[in-house]
Amino acid sequence: MAPGKKGILERLNAGEVVIGDGGFVFALEKRGYVKAGPWTPEAAHTHPESGKKYTHTCRHIFTQVIPKPQMHMKARGTHTHTGAQVNEAACDLAREVANEGDALVAGGVSQTPSYLSCKSETEVKAIFKKQLDVFMKKNVDFMIAEYFEHVEEAEWAVQVLKASGKPVAANMCIGPEGDMHGVSTGECAVRLVKAGAQIVGVNCHFDPMTCVKAVKMMKDAVEKAGLKAHYMVQPLAFHTPDCNCQGFIDLPEFPFGLEPRILTRWDMHAYAREAYNVGIRYIGGCCGFEPYHIRAVAEELATERGILPAASEKHGMWGAGLEMHTKPWVRARARRDYWEQLKPASGRPLCPSMSTPEGWGVTKGHADLLQHKEATSSQEMKHVVDHP
Amino acid sequence: MAPGKKGILERLNAGEVVIGDGGFVFALEKRGYVKAGPWTPEAAHTHPESGKKYTHTCRHIFTQVIPKPQMHMKARGTHTHTGAQVNEAACDLAREVANEGDALVAGGVSQTPSYLSCKSETEVKAIFKKQLDVFMKKNVDFMIAEYFEHVEEAEWAVQVLKASGKPVAANMCIGPEGDMHGVSTGECAVRLVKAGAQIVGVNCHFDPMTCVKAVKMMKDAVEKAGLKAHYMVQPLAFHTPDCNCQGFIDLPEFPFGLEPRILTRWDMHAYAREAYNVGIRYIGGCCGFEPYHIRAVAEELATERGILPAASEKHGMWGAGLEMHTKPWVRARARRDYWEQLKPASGRPLCPSMSTPEGWGVTKGHADLLQHKEATSSQEMKHVVDHP
Amino acid sequence: MAPGKKGILERLNAGEVVIGDGGFVFALEKRGYVKAGPWTPEAAHTHPESGKKYTHTCRHIFTQVIPKPQMHMKARGTHTHTGAQVNEAACDLAREVANEGDALVAGGVSQTPSYLSCKSETEVKAIFKKQLDVFMKKNVDFMIAEYFEHVEEAEWAVQVLKASGKPVAANMCIGPEGDMHGVSTGECAVRLVKAGAQIVGVNCHFDPMTCVKAVKMMKDAVEKAGLKAHYMVQPLAFHTPDCNCQGFIDLPEFPFGLEPRILTRWDMHAYAREAYNVGIRYIGGCCGFEPYHIRAVAEELATERGILPAASEKHGMWGAGLEMHTKPWVRARARRDYWEQLKPASGRPLCPSMSTPEGWGVTKGHADLLQHKEATSSQEMKHVVDHP
Amino acid sequence: MAPGKKGILERLNAGEVVIGDGGFVFALEKRGYVKAGPWTPEAAHTHPESGKKYTHTCRHIFTQVIPKPQMHMKARGTHTHTGAQVNEAACDLAREVANEGDALVAGGVSQTPSYLSCKSETEVKAIFKKQLDVFMKKNVDFMIAEYFEHVEEAEWAVQVLKASGKPVAANMCIGPEGDMHGVSTGECAVRLVKAGAQIVGVNCHFDPMTCVKAVKMMKDAVEKAGLKAHYMVQPLAFHTPDCNCQGFIDLPEFPFGLEPRILTRWDMHAYAREAYNVGIRYIGGCCGFEPYHIRAVAEELATERGILPAASEKHGMWGAGLEMHTKPWVRARARRDYWEQLKPASGRPLCPSMSTPEGWGVTKGHADLLQHKEATSSQEMKHVVDHP
Repeated sequence: MAPGKKGILERLNAGEVVIGDGGFVFALEKRGYVKAGPWTPEAAHTHPESGKKYTHTCRHIFTQVIPKPQMHMKARGTHTHTGAQVNEAACDLAREVANEGDALVAGGVSQTPSYLSCKSETEVKAIFKKQLDVFMKKNVDFMIAEYFEHVEEAEWAVQVLKASGKPVAANMCIGPEGDMHGVSTGECAVRLVKAGAQIVGVNCHFDPMTCVKAVKMMKDAVEKAGLKAHYMVQPLAFHTPDCNCQGFIDLPEFPFGLEPRILTRWDMHAYAREAYNVGIRYIGGCCGFEPYHIRAVAEELATERGILPAASEKHGMWGAGLEMHTKPWVRARARRDYWEQLKPASGRPLCPSMSTPEGWGVTKGHADLLQHKEATSSQEMKHVVDHP
Repeated sequence: MAPGKKGILERLNAGEVVIGDGGFVFALEKRGYVKAGPWTPEAAHTHPESGKKYTHTCRHIFTQVIPKPQMHMKARGTHTHTGAQVNEAACDLAREVANEGDALVAGGVSQTPSYLSCKSETEVKAIFKKQLDVFMKKNVDFMIAEYFEHVEEAEWAVQVLKASGKPVAANMCIGPEGDMHGVSTGECAVRLVKAGAQIVGVNCHFDPMTCVKAVKMMKDAVEKAGLKAHYMVQPLAFHTPDCNCQGFIDLPEFPFGLEPRILTRWDMHAYAREAYNVGIRYIGGCCGFEPYHIRAVAEELATERGILPAASEKHGMWGAGLEMHTKPWVRARARRDYWEQLKPASGRPLCPSMSTPEGWGVTKGHADLLQHKEATSSQEMKHVVDHP
Repeated sequence: MAPGKKGILERLNAGEVVIGDGGFVFALEKRGYVKAGPWTPEAAHTHPESGKKYTHTCRHIFTQVIPKPQMHMKARGTHTHTGAQVNEAACDLAREVANEGDALVAGGVSQTPSYLSCKSETEVKAIFKKQLDVFMKKNVDFMIAEYFEHVEEAEWAVQVLKASGKPVAANMCIGPEGDMHGVSTGECAVRLVKAGAQIVGVNCHFDPMTCVKAVKMMKDAVEKAGLKAHYMVQPLAFHTPDCNCQGFIDLPEFPFGLEPRILTRWDMHAYAREAYNVGIRYIGGCCGFEPYHIRAVAEELATERGILPAASEKHGMWGAGLEMHTKPWVRARARRDYWEQLKPASGRPLCPSMSTPEGWGVTKGHADLLQHKEATSSQEMKHVVDHP
Repeated sequence: MAPGKKGILERLNAGEVVIGDGGFVFALEKRGYVKAGPWTPEAAHTHPESGKKYTHTCRHIFTQVIPKPQMHMKARGTHTHTGAQVNEAACDLAREVANEGDALVAGGVSQTPSYLSCKSETEVKAIFKKQLDVFMKKNVDFMIAEYFEHVEEAEWAVQVLKASGKPVAANMCIGPEGDMHGVSTGECAVRLVKAGAQIVGVNCHFDPMTCVKAVKMMKDAVEKAGLKAHYMVQPLAFHTPDCNCQGFIDLPEFPFGLEPRILTRWDMHAYAREAYNVGIRYIGGCCGFEPYHIRAVAEELATERGILPAASEKHGMWGAGLEMHTKPWVRARARRDYWEQLKPASGRPLCPSMSTPEGWGVTKGHADLLQHKEATSSQEMKHVVDHP
């Protein structure tokens, strides 16, 4: 860690609010640098500037951003860069940006296709170890195990990361209904803390309010078990009131029709306040977050953090910039209650408010989820389309 | 113009499809570089990198982007950069990016607060002339007069720009209901062509399908009048089925609650096809457009243009990248009819589909619209809130 | 006419507001007496009590109801009662109920399948004449030609009815877009007045506000032509913002999924006021109207009519009855502005706000519309389902 | 009981499906015979014909309807008929209609304002006893205690009714969240069965699917407790996905803006099937039900019941009557999958899908709920409107 920087646990133990950055891959996909489907952020390697621009833009927003180069597995796909190359490039990039401010760099691991395909604990742990080695070489500030649908695999990851001596955060990508094996959300947190995680929470898969609710269940269970932890939340920037336990992956709009679900900056104010009230102190974002969403989180908590984000120079609080608009009826929107009370129309009269998510009910070990290297065959397609 | 580049009229006369770039200020506002309200893109001066990144990202998408440094008036506000400084910086930036590819640089002028405040034709034309001088000094490739609510003012602008000898395009920011003085949309186009514009169309204020409908009315009227022109369209990337003649400014969601209205990439395919079918050949975007929207327009017209945009390397057509997804039901979305038929849910059960726009019915000359330099007073606010 | 009763023209000439009754067949279908599809109200013959109950219930509402036994053709179907039998029974029923109060009885004719099948003017007029004979025998108070999609056929009907010497009203079932042959709404009215109708308007097919808009266009055209008439309107009690020129028949919800579109009593207040303001004085309802809808129309115009409907004894104006509710938050709804401002939720998060109507664009003479006596064949079904 | 009629328990023990009638008061309010607010069905006394017509219409639908004269307390209000008079008249009416077919007559008691005002068990039981005396004098076939928000009061009612020797059914007006004192839904059922009820379930306050879910929880709990019972459900005919524990009373649309929530006949098919599958055998309806809704329930279960309702003579199953429609695209709707898959549009683009219910969180004993005889004072109104 750069000399003079406080570590993540030091910050949280001191009661600081830490704000995490957001939706790297989704944001880069919309800018043309990442391909949806495999989602591998090889952009860090092939287009280092693109990732830097994005994290830089985020950093511009406030000073404590935590860019998080996340190591995804060598995904099913045809890209030629190895996972290690990608991760090394990502670390360098994150460090460069972080050093411009007071930010930290985290190394990330997430769930493996190998687990879904029923590989052994030894095999899966070996994968995490290999990723950890890269992050240790690059001397990241702390480790995050995140995006796990099964607490068993998350425990394995925490056990591997814990051995590094770095602080470890662990996030499930679940909501209030628990993990894919039916383990309750609270129980997941208890097991992760027992496995060694100092920070627990959820990321991705659900909208902010749902994620906060899930972390609240985690906190209650951890406290009831007589344990201690810090809490973090990194939700989607998409409204998902209609998701079942598998989250937004199952929505018919995933991943190319999610636009109408994007949160406004005012939704983010409400989210930040709710997360803070519940006792979460590491508050960030995941897929769908743009810099202005992170800025809104930081603005809502400006008093608690004692600092307004740098980017607020270009943002009047609660629409204050509109005071200078030409039309008087737009000028009148320069006030908090206007935006707090607004229920924004979808502009889509042929579209419903909610969708029916897929609900296949398959998970680890099911034939439908086994890794295969080929693209969808027409026989597979028929199988899927016929699925009730 | 850089040697070897074809001019805008050469391209259009040859039957090429030209694709224009998109929503500079809205995109930069969300990234923290521009303040909503005054909307002045002084970012070109204060954060040249930010604008460059955005246009660069757009250029990455395809090779014929037309970055358009637009000269807004010295807006009501407190910024200290003069309009000329802003425009010079913007021109340099646009030229630098354009030169990396085959793009052109346009200089833009738009409606003036002076016109709304009933200044004389001489005074208003002097403003346009001053802006033109900067663009001539920087030797832009052609001129665009755009974002005019009153055809009378647009004619003045065209007359000024025409004197430069550069090709002139002219866009009204109106829909099918005509301009703010009640001049029909078709008649507006006829008058602009007679004033000397070689390209006419609409930009901003309405969604793509509404704008295409308006340009179709323009084309019909111009042809009926026995005149000739090229046609362009640069709509919002927001659905606006509920707008009255003043467009999205009057929607209660403007400008900070528009998220649910954002078009998907599939909406953009439909838009590009419809614009092409109607006979429009300069097809672009305005507020709300992100690079992936422009890419979708270029992908839809790949056959007609004989080229797939560069950024499509990272984008399977019609969701093809999903063929490699882990979940079989997501793999099954790698097909055109899935995305064409999807009616994406808003994810907002408490929000309606349409809004009631403000409808003050005031325009040029009304006291409520006179320029004043102060922010909204509480008396003004009361006047507005009480307005029926 | 019963001695002492004023005729329909006397009433209208005196400036009275006449309120028509409503949706006979739809209401009886929901009560189990009429079969949807053929829609033939043979209930008047087979279940005279059912019709009497309904009209009686309406009459209970106010004193000037105009029960209107409508003569439909011997519809495609298997019922065994002749049209004449049905009409005679209906007339007796209507007269009995009308005599209990100050109501009038109208005889009605509507468009014929023969016209759609391109039968001659002579043949179609003979059908109207045969129907008229029954109504003359029963001595109805006036005649209504209604539910015509083509003004040509409506003119034929008016010409036949006019010969009876009874006052004649004529309603098209069209909206602001004109008739199925493209004759403008205003022109339709002018032609009907010239054919002899003393009252013109529209009925069925569109929602109240759309119908009022159409009648306004009729009134403007009639006055512009230097003619004189009274105006009537009998809209649906369903919201139809999404209809094309053919009205609610083309909506996917027709006829068994229209529930979410049903107007509230407060919608009816707004309708009655708007109709009155536009200058319509014969204000009624068609499919979907229930007695409480008619009551709301009568309550809105209580001052203008100088009388509150009888049924208002059981109805506090603007929710006044709620003042006695147990829960204080329900008591607080006993006020006009609460109900006027309410935007009632659909309670259907999976349903959109609007539908895409069918738009076959076929009309009189098209093979698809020729009468045939058999139910849909599977070949026909395929043809329909495949229709783009 | 009429000789030869089987009692309610005989029927249920034999595995028969019993279908209950529906929304007496809401239906009569829309026909002008009952005043909303006090809701007292004094119509049985003042307009006996109106009630008879409605139950008669229902009876017309099928042969096993169970008209249920329900004894409401002498409500806050100004009507002059005593509760006993109302109940006697209602019993005579119900018996007359029931005797025309194979229906039974039930006597009903429901929650008392006295309980909310904290009167003693002795006082509240005396009220139920007084009501029971009337029903015993009229020799009803069985007793129903229904519309209870607190299981404690429901137990008191069951204890009183049980003494009569008549079969006793008991319904809470709660959903899956339990009663107003926080007693779980399952526990409520167990306590009611222990108090002596042979049939338990829920009525009113929630939509069909929510009510079925609640009864399923009751059944599971009763079986887990080793007890036995029959199950009944009488839900609203309004969709209420947005209700909290207090049900539709708290919705902003209650009671005069509920139209967009009305279930279609196809919704009723799904409800009847789900209720049957869950093991409920007494399936009926409450507020909002019209005869065609009851018919749809009976049609869905025609095979299980071995009989099609009489009124189906006028109703082709799954829209079969449309096979004879003039327009081919309407003919094509004469099929089950069309109606099953339809997601009907609301026709209300300015209205959301769901509402935010009031959530005062007050119940028995709270000052806001104490009985008082006067209408809302302006001070009360202010208190309510200011309520957060």
